[in-house]
Amino acid sequence: MQKPLILVTNDDGITAPGIRNLVAFMNEIGDVVVVAPNSPQSGKGHAVTIDSTLSFEELHLEGSQKDFSCSGTPVDCVKIALDKILTRKPDIVVSGINHGSNSSINVIYSGTMSAAVEAGVEGLSAIGFSLLDFSWEADFLPAKHYIQNIVKRILENPLPKGIVLNVNIPKLSKDEIKGVKVCKQADAKWEESFDERINPHGKKYYWLSGYFNNMDASDDADETALANGYISVVPVKFDLTAYEYLKELNGVLNF
Amino acid sequence: MQKPLILVTNDDGITAPGIRNLVAFMNEIGDVVVVAPNSPQSGKGHAVTIDSTLSFEELHLEGSQKDFSCSGTPVDCVKIALDKILTRKPDIVVSGINHGSNSSINVIYSGTMSAAVEAGVEGLSAIGFSLLDFSWEADFLPAKHYIQNIVKRILENPLPKGIVLNVNIPKLSKDEIKGVKVCKQADAKWEESFDERINPHGKKYYWLSGYFNNMDASDDADETALANGYISVVPVKFDLTAYEYLKELNGVLNF
Repeated sequence: MQKPLILVTNDDGITAPGIRNLVAFMNEIGDVVVVAPNSPQSGKGHAVTIDSTLSFEELHLEGSQKDFSCSGTPVDCVKIALDKILTRKPDIVVSGINHGSNSSINVIYSGTMSAAVEAGVEGLSAIGFSLLDFSWEADFLPAKHYIQNIVKRILENPLPKGIVLNVNIPKLSKDEIKGVKVCKQADAKWEESFDERINPHGKKYYWLSGYFNNMDASDDADETALANGYISVVPVKFDLTAYEYLKELNGVLNF
Repeated sequence: MQKPLILVTNDDGITAPGIRNLVAFMNEIGDVVVVAPNSPQSGKGHAVTIDSTLSFEELHLEGSQKDFSCSGTPVDCVKIALDKILTRKPDIVVSGINHGSNSSINVIYSGTMSAAVEAGVEGLSAIGFSLLDFSWEADFLPAKHYIQNIVKRILENPLPKGIVLNVNIPKLSKDEIKGVKVCKQADAKWEESFDERINPHGKKYYWLSGYFNNMDASDDADETALANGYISVVPVKFDLTAYEYLKELNGVLNF
């Protein structure tokens, strides 16, 4: 039997520890092809490269997989992998493991999740993985078997059209992780406070700064699961229509 | 009575004809402050500037509004406007008028809509406007009264928390536009085909190319409304949870 074909990408760049760990985990499950950005792309959201060109080159990194380094964003990587690099349709697309959380509202800013969403738009099962640890020395091993098991289950039960998974992993040891919890996206936001500085020429400039404000204490929210030691899994859709508001909006815009 | 405060932004850049038209339309409704990118930012999705700094400067352009040109993405513009430029909370945030469609799946790639979504995350009523005409000479006037009426109605009926509007306008004369239709996001996608070229040094490079594939002929889809001569209005939410799949996913991931 042919092994499943797994496309791996990320937004921290092809050499980031997070993706190298994910590649090692996936090599034990299927045939792996990596197409990932040649530089960090965090916070790029669903950006695509329209006004400039793209290129990619094959690297020869350790492991049994094929590695392609691409000049574009995570979304570009998925597009070019499907159109120009892969010779057959992948059975699943996995993105990450991101260095840092993509839970709750972070999903909309996340390059990791945008790559997964792009794969979903292409009709593929796709999962984004993120670890709640920004460090380049982060330990991805405690979540290894959970990540592998989630991927295996989705290979056996492909996701419905229009849905991808957002998986976030708490920064805990293997013994401390309590399990996997299916969740909704918590109602949370970043409270901005730009850090104002003055450059040597006397002109003001700003660093984006702020703090995370979780406004959602419900049991089924991803932030709650993570705080309680669980790996959170949110099914994410990209039909953004607020169906529940259509009728009322018809009344408001009844010209 | 105090006039409503209207924050205007876009993704084509502060000097684009689309935003200058929107500013002129909004000047007839309220007090306008413009905070928009100093360069085109199309296709930037929900990108934010994390790894570099931001700056802005006041310009003195024609009209009664205040104009600030910002070095960042559309999302950065909304964030810095709310934190550093505006002295009171805006009554509404309008983004656009985009040169080109943001209907159906385009919403997820759109800087115009990301600015509106960011305003929604901040708890504000927000609307993204797009005209189905990429030309810099596009005629925005046929939609003037529709745009003004939609903004006035939303000022009177603020949007519920978590919802913003995606308004797309067909490229038609005033007489040809049939009216406004509340819609769902059509099920559509871009079929990629990268255009391969060879640079003077013999290395391959690619331009993103392809065609738009509308797979949704339903009466209530935005693409259908636009094709039939209507302005489409889709209420868009940023809680991406696929609630309808939670129960089944619980079964799939029942370890």
